[in-house]
Amino acid sequence: MTATVPSVAELRRRLDAGEITVVEVVRGCLDAIADREEQLQAWVHLDAELVLERARVLDALPPERRGPLHGVPVGVKDIVDTADQPTGHGSPIYTGNEPDADAVAVARLRAAGAVVVGKTVTTEFALFQPGPTRNPHGISRTPGGSSSGSAAAVAAGQVPLAIGTQTAGSIVRPASFCGVFGAKPTFGAVPLDGVKLCSPSLDTVGLLGSDVDGIAVGLGVMADDPERFRPVDLGERPRIGFVRTPWWHEVERGERGRIETAVEALAGDLDVVEVELPAEFAGLVDAQQVVMGVEVLDALAFEIEHHGSRLSARLRAYLDDARRMRDEFDQAVALRESCRRQLDAAFGELDVWLAPSVLGEAPDAATTGDPLLCRPWTLLGTPTVAVPGLRGGDGLPLGLQTIARPGDDGRALGAARLVSERLAAGERSQGR
Amino acid sequence: MTATVPSVAELRRRLDAGEITVVEVVRGCLDAIADREEQLQAWVHLDAELVLERARVLDALPPERRGPLHGVPVGVKDIVDTADQPTGHGSPIYTGNEPDADAVAVARLRAAGAVVVGKTVTTEFALFQPGPTRNPHGISRTPGGSSSGSAAAVAAGQVPLAIGTQTAGSIVRPASFCGVFGAKPTFGAVPLDGVKLCSPSLDTVGLLGSDVDGIAVGLGVMADDPERFRPVDLGERPRIGFVRTPWWHEVERGERGRIETAVEALAGDLDVVEVELPAEFAGLVDAQQVVMGVEVLDALAFEIEHHGSRLSARLRAYLDDARRMRDEFDQAVALRESCRRQLDAAFGELDVWLAPSVLGEAPDAATTGDPLLCRPWTLLGTPTVAVPGLRGGDGLPLGLQTIARPGDDGRALGAARLVSERLAAGERSQGR
Repeated sequence: MTATVPSVAELRRRLDAGEITVVEVVRGCLDAIADREEQLQAWVHLDAELVLERARVLDALPPERRGPLHGVPVGVKDIVDTADQPTGHGSPIYTGNEPDADAVAVARLRAAGAVVVGKTVTTEFALFQPGPTRNPHGISRTPGGSSSGSAAAVAAGQVPLAIGTQTAGSIVRPASFCGVFGAKPTFGAVPLDGVKLCSPSLDTVGLLGSDVDGIAVGLGVMADDPERFRPVDLGERPRIGFVRTPWWHEVERGERGRIETAVEALAGDLDVVEVELPAEFAGLVDAQQVVMGVEVLDALAFEIEHHGSRLSARLRAYLDDARRMRDEFDQAVALRESCRRQLDAAFGELDVWLAPSVLGEAPDAATTGDPLLCRPWTLLGTPTVAVPGLRGGDGLPLGLQTIARPGDDGRALGAARLVSERLAAGERSQGR
Repeated sequence: MTATVPSVAELRRRLDAGEITVVEVVRGCLDAIADREEQLQAWVHLDAELVLERARVLDALPPERRGPLHGVPVGVKDIVDTADQPTGHGSPIYTGNEPDADAVAVARLRAAGAVVVGKTVTTEFALFQPGPTRNPHGISRTPGGSSSGSAAAVAAGQVPLAIGTQTAGSIVRPASFCGVFGAKPTFGAVPLDGVKLCSPSLDTVGLLGSDVDGIAVGLGVMADDPERFRPVDLGERPRIGFVRTPWWHEVERGERGRIETAVEALAGDLDVVEVELPAEFAGLVDAQQVVMGVEVLDALAFEIEHHGSRLSARLRAYLDDARRMRDEFDQAVALRESCRRQLDAAFGELDVWLAPSVLGEAPDAATTGDPLLCRPWTLLGTPTVAVPGLRGGDGLPLGLQTIARPGDDGRALGAARLVSERLAAGERSQGR
C-alpha cells in the first residue's frame, strides 16, 4: 500500500481539529515521494530538512496567525522562482540558477501558510522537450507537459496541490493525462512576476490538485482575490453546453464514443445542450501557434544568442518553424480579438461549456502529447478546468474540461466539481 | 571643456569610415563619465575593464559581421537584467543580485553590436523614491525618474543611448527634464523578459538618446522589427494636432505661455491645429494611477512579505494608498478600453499629436517630479516621444511630446525629429 496525502480540504480539516501536525503532514508527503520517486521522477529539487524546518515554524504559530493554506504542501513547477531553492527552467543552461526572490505566486502561497515541498519537473522552458517524469497510471506513458512533475506528483498523492503554467495546454493536458484537476485561470489573474516567460500574451499561472476546493483556495491566494475563485454552486439543473469543437475528428475514434456516452449520462440530470462554436473559431488553433511561436522567439532571445548549442534539437527545430510565422502574427492577433468579441454571445444563457481536453489517453513518454484542444482557450484567455473521472480504452485517464467566460473562474470551478462528481457516480453505478 | 560622445548616427558614420575604433569610442565614454560622475551620480555599476574587453572583441570583427549598432555604447537601467553585471532594482534588497541571463532587450542590443557600458541609476523599483542622480543642466535639480541615470548620462554626453522603462512617465519625464529624446514605444513592442515588473499592463521598455535616428535603430533592434521604428518623413506640411489636454491648468503659468509661443512659431510652417480630447479622456490620469497602484501591489508581493522594513517610507506610503484602490480597478480598466476605442477617431486625419510632457522645469532633487502628463498615454499604450528644444523660465529644459496611434511608432519618431529641428531653428533665429 502506497502512502498518499489527503486532499487540501481534508488536510485543512484535520489540521484545524488538531488531529495532525504540519510536521506529520510533511513527513507523509516525503514518504509518498520516497515510495515512487525512483519510478516517477516528478521532482527536480527536494530538500527534506528545509521543508521540515518550515513545518516546525508553522506548527509553532498560534491559531490566529494561521493562513487559509496553513500546512498545505505544494509543489512548484521549476520555471517558477523560489528564493530558497534553485530554479532550473528545465534546461542545462540554468542548472544551479538561484533567484533572489520568490515569484509572486509563491510568495503569496507561503504567506498563506503553504509549505513549498520542492520543485517539480518541467519540460525544457515549459515547451516540448520532455523531462524524465512518467505517468503514475502507466509508467511507460508521458504525464503530459509542460507541468509534468506537478501533474505526476498530484496524481501519485505526493502533494495535494502543485503550481503549473499554461501557454498552449501545459496545465489542462497533464492534468487530463494524470487524472487530476487542473485549473488555468482567466489570463492575467495570477501575476507572472518571477515566472520564466515563454509567451507573455498566453502564459498563465494556475494549479493542479486533487480537489476543486483546494485549487480554488490556492488560486484565490495566488491572485489575491478569493471571491473570484470561490466555486459557484450551479443549482439543481445547471445549463451546460457540450462543445465538440471543430477539432473533434482529431480525437481518437474509440475515445469519441466514450466521451459521448459520458456526456449523454450527464445529460440525464444536468441540462446539457450541444453548442457549435462560431465559424471563425476554427482558426484559433493555428492562430495560437503563431502567437506562441513568435513570442517564444522573443522570450528566448538571450538563450538563442548565447547558449544555442545547449538548446535541445527539438527546441531548435521549433524555433526554426517559428521564424517563418512572423508574417502571420498580426492576422493571428486580429483573429483572437475578433473571437473574443464573439465569446459572450456564443455563451448566451449557458453557465459553462464542457469540451474534450485531450485527443486520447497519454501516449508513450517520447513526447508530452498534443495540446491541440487546449490551444483555443489559452488564446482566448478563458478560465478552463481539467475534469478527471473519465477513462479511455486502456483504462487510463481521459480528459474533459470546463470553460467559462473570462473572469468567471468560479463558475468553471463549480462546474468542474459537479461534472467530476457525476462522472464518479456513473463509474460507481457501472461497478468500475 | 567636458568630453562628450557623439550621436549614434555620427558614431556609426565614423566607425564605418574607419576614422575611429570601438576602443576609442568606449574610452571617450569612460572619460566623459569620469569627468562628471562625482557630481551627477548617473551610474550604479561600471566595470571599465569589461567594457574595454568587449570593445576589443568588436574591433576584431570583420566588417560583414558588424551589426546595426556596432560599437554604440549603451547605458542600461538597473531594473533590466544583465548576465555580466549585477542588477539592483534601486533597492538594498537586491544589492549584489546577479541574474543568470540578459533581458531580451539587452541580449538583442548586444547581438546588434552595442556595448553595454554599465548600469544606470533607477529609483527604487522604478517608482518614486529618488536615487542619488542629479540633473546635468542644474545640479540641485532632479533628472526626473525613474530612468534617472539613463537621462542624466545621455544629457551629459556620456552615452548616446540608454535603456529606460515607463510605467507612469519614467522615460518621457526624465528625458524632458534633461533635454534629450526619450521614446516609449507602443505597449508590448519590446519584450519585458528580464525586466523587473512593476505594473505589467503598463510597463514599457524604451530608449533615451541624443538623436532620433539612434533611438529608432535601437528600438528596431530591441523589438526585432526595424521597419516599424523607421522615422516617417511627414512631408512638406504635416498635420499635427496640438493637445493642451484636460490637465493644461496644472502646467506652471509661465511655462504655459512659453509652450504656446513655441507652438505658434511651429504653426508658421507646419499645419498645426488645436485638438480637444474626447470628454471621457479626462478620467485617464486617475485610471492610470489605479491600474498601476493595484498592479504594483501584486508585483512587489515578495518584497512586501519578506523585506517590508527595507522598503523606503515613501514606497510604503504609496503601497498603503494603493491598497485602497482595489475596488476601482475594474472601472479603471473599463475606462481605458473605452478610450482606446475612441482613439482612432480622435486622431482623425492627423498624423500625430503634440502635447506638453511635464508641468514645468525639473524641480529640486527631493522628488523626481510629477508624471501627470505622461500617465494618459502610458495607460492607452500609444507611442510617445519626448522632444527636446524648449526651455523654461530658469533656462532649463522644458518638454513636449509627440503621440501617435498604437503601432505607429515611426510617425511619432519622425514628428519628434521634425519638431525638435524647428524648435532648434527658432532658438537660433532668436539668437539664443
